[in-house]
Amino acid sequence: MKPYLENVRKTSPLIHCITNYVTVNDVANMLLAAGASPVMSDEPEDVEDITSISSALLINIGTLHEKSIEAMFLAGKKAKEQGKIIVLDPVGAGASKLRTETAKRILTELQPQIIRGNISEIKALLFDASGTKGVDASIDDAVTAENLKQAADFAKACAKQSSAIVSISGAIDLIADADTCYAVYNGRAEMAKVTGTGCQLGALTAAFAAANPDALLAACTAAVCLMGYAGETAWMDLKKEEGNATYRNRIIDAVSNMTSSDLERGARYEIF
Amino acid sequence: MKPYLENVRKTSPLIHCITNYVTVNDVANMLLAAGASPVMSDEPEDVEDITSISSALLINIGTLHEKSIEAMFLAGKKAKEQGKIIVLDPVGAGASKLRTETAKRILTELQPQIIRGNISEIKALLFDASGTKGVDASIDDAVTAENLKQAADFAKACAKQSSAIVSISGAIDLIADADTCYAVYNGRAEMAKVTGTGCQLGALTAAFAAANPDALLAACTAAVCLMGYAGETAWMDLKKEEGNATYRNRIIDAVSNMTSSDLERGARYEIF
Amino acid sequence: MKPYLENVRKTSPLIHCITNYVTVNDVANMLLAAGASPVMSDEPEDVEDITSISSALLINIGTLHEKSIEAMFLAGKKAKEQGKIIVLDPVGAGASKLRTETAKRILTELQPQIIRGNISEIKALLFDASGTKGVDASIDDAVTAENLKQAADFAKACAKQSSAIVSISGAIDLIADADTCYAVYNGRAEMAKVTGTGCQLGALTAAFAAANPDALLAACTAAVCLMGYAGETAWMDLKKEEGNATYRNRIIDAVSNMTSSDLERGARYEIF
Repeated sequence: MKPYLENVRKTSPLIHCITNYVTVNDVANMLLAAGASPVMSDEPEDVEDITSISSALLINIGTLHEKSIEAMFLAGKKAKEQGKIIVLDPVGAGASKLRTETAKRILTELQPQIIRGNISEIKALLFDASGTKGVDASIDDAVTAENLKQAADFAKACAKQSSAIVSISGAIDLIADADTCYAVYNGRAEMAKVTGTGCQLGALTAAFAAANPDALLAACTAAVCLMGYAGETAWMDLKKEEGNATYRNRIIDAVSNMTSSDLERGARYEIF
Repeated sequence: MKPYLENVRKTSPLIHCITNYVTVNDVANMLLAAGASPVMSDEPEDVEDITSISSALLINIGTLHEKSIEAMFLAGKKAKEQGKIIVLDPVGAGASKLRTETAKRILTELQPQIIRGNISEIKALLFDASGTKGVDASIDDAVTAENLKQAADFAKACAKQSSAIVSISGAIDLIADADTCYAVYNGRAEMAKVTGTGCQLGALTAAFAAANPDALLAACTAAVCLMGYAGETAWMDLKKEEGNATYRNRIIDAVSNMTSSDLERGARYEIF
Repeated sequence: MKPYLENVRKTSPLIHCITNYVTVNDVANMLLAAGASPVMSDEPEDVEDITSISSALLINIGTLHEKSIEAMFLAGKKAKEQGKIIVLDPVGAGASKLRTETAKRILTELQPQIIRGNISEIKALLFDASGTKGVDASIDDAVTAENLKQAADFAKACAKQSSAIVSISGAIDLIADADTCYAVYNGRAEMAKVTGTGCQLGALTAAFAAANPDALLAACTAAVCLMGYAGETAWMDLKKEEGNATYRNRIIDAVSNMTSSDLERGARYEIF
């Protein structure tokens, strides 16, 4: 996992984020922590110029607006035209018609190279599943040691169907293309008590992909390992009186302090 | 106050927040800290679906947009139709015509069960007072030990006039329906130096109401005690070099660490 | 630099911020830390009322929307009419046509008294330079001990051309009117790894100008010294496991804890 983080720090890719206003500040600080640069723009008149100077485009649908949807398609078309990476984070797909349909349209029309979400969002995007509870994964879909092999096959099937790398966040994270699935064991359940850890991972994924265009699947996996391992080390440093807001800051801190050798040592994953 | 927090943690209500973009991240993390779940959506096309899967609707008018106002009424009508709790946080009512009139229209058309604000906002909403300085309460309206009895009567009158529970934040907080007023002594003046503590309380109020539908007044009071007591314990843990940004994080931390027994012990209130 | 901070704390000016949604929360908490009050509003129907109750208007173009641009001009005209301070922060000017042109239009039509940005933004605003990398200053334009005298002359020329005080952020900060240029040595390079330190400085600048209307150039310099010195003291308090997210909080903490005597002692600057 070492070279992938090194490449982010060496190339400092500029990531155009069209993302929700809830977690946008953490997304920006996380990109800076990893060594990348953020630029936010979701106005139709502005986005094509911004995509043009960026290395990758992150589309996160956490708070959609009529205008920002228009911006997503303008930016996405520009990115496609210029052969740049598009990462789709289908936040809350399945929770509303607008979210589900917008995510599906993005998939069809913009053909993102990478999709990152929890399992219920991925299902809502690729199948006609429903039952999303807000933006959290439903419990039924938890990936465990017991169902890991089937889950990996499912992830590969998702990748095949979407013609994209699929990065599914959960107790065990799965990152797959049609042929290969990485299962990542890093991370802590408490990260779900911090809003935006998923959004931040989406942004890291775009940065790692932009900096490692010839090894997309491994780079996406490295982003997942980085986020998860940062969540582990940040947890260890928490004091008794500290809780989820300090944890949120420390996860970003941990990424800013993490060397590529630390990541190499800390990453825990298997290939299926 | 113990069972009310327990019920939030047991039922983990999903709170649909239409709220300002200034403090939205803290609102989300505060809901998670208390054991509830946040979902943000302010696009007219999206909000009815989101309200439908939520347990309560928070309407905070801190940064109004033409579109988000439309969304507030669509979501509010859906919530009413489905018998769900609506909490109105009339941020800055009195500071501009748009804010005052929008808050008044929400009150009339959506009939929220609960209104939470500072005393100048409540006055601007219910009477034709003015003189709001931005979103802070004007000094003249400070509730003190001396005028507490009259202030409690005023709070009851506000509740009667609005047909809502009124939760008035100040040096002493007042939570009243037409017949009963709780005065809460928890909290610290320094909380006003952190943006969004009021917004976070509005969100907690929605969560406590959703989790305790049969004891709304006491539940709203429990939310106020929780916020105030978290502000007290967070302050005690601050080090010399730490200031208002760390304080902001520690208040949320304190909520995430607070057990229902802690809250029971720490809550300080009287009934009028 | 002492009286300028004292005046902010004594008068607690209300600052109307039309600013980007990425760093808006930090902007609000920074204003509170310095002793000022924030109010955010970017809806055309709302802004004239809000400007009317405020002491100064901050226009930060970090995330433009069609509607917020309209709001900037309405608020700006009201501020002009009422003789209030306008501060322009041309975030990302040079990075897109919309940003560059909007910044230029604001300069021409609203004639802000103060412009704060990095050198590439200032160039894009005042000349036809380009090459902005997102919102960061390009390396070529770094101000160093070697080119300081020329840089100061350049800053004065910018001030003369724009008929505004120009506050240029960089390794050495330059604050100039047509005749005089302050060079400020406070600050740390690591502040660039925290999103929004520039936006926060823009807001502080508005607060200091509002509180010191008869000494605008020195007041703008005091804001720069405060921000930079806070960045230095915050850095010294960081522990090994803490990184850019904690640093972000501690900078705001340092401002909230800084006395005017601390600032007087810590400010390092020269006049050209």
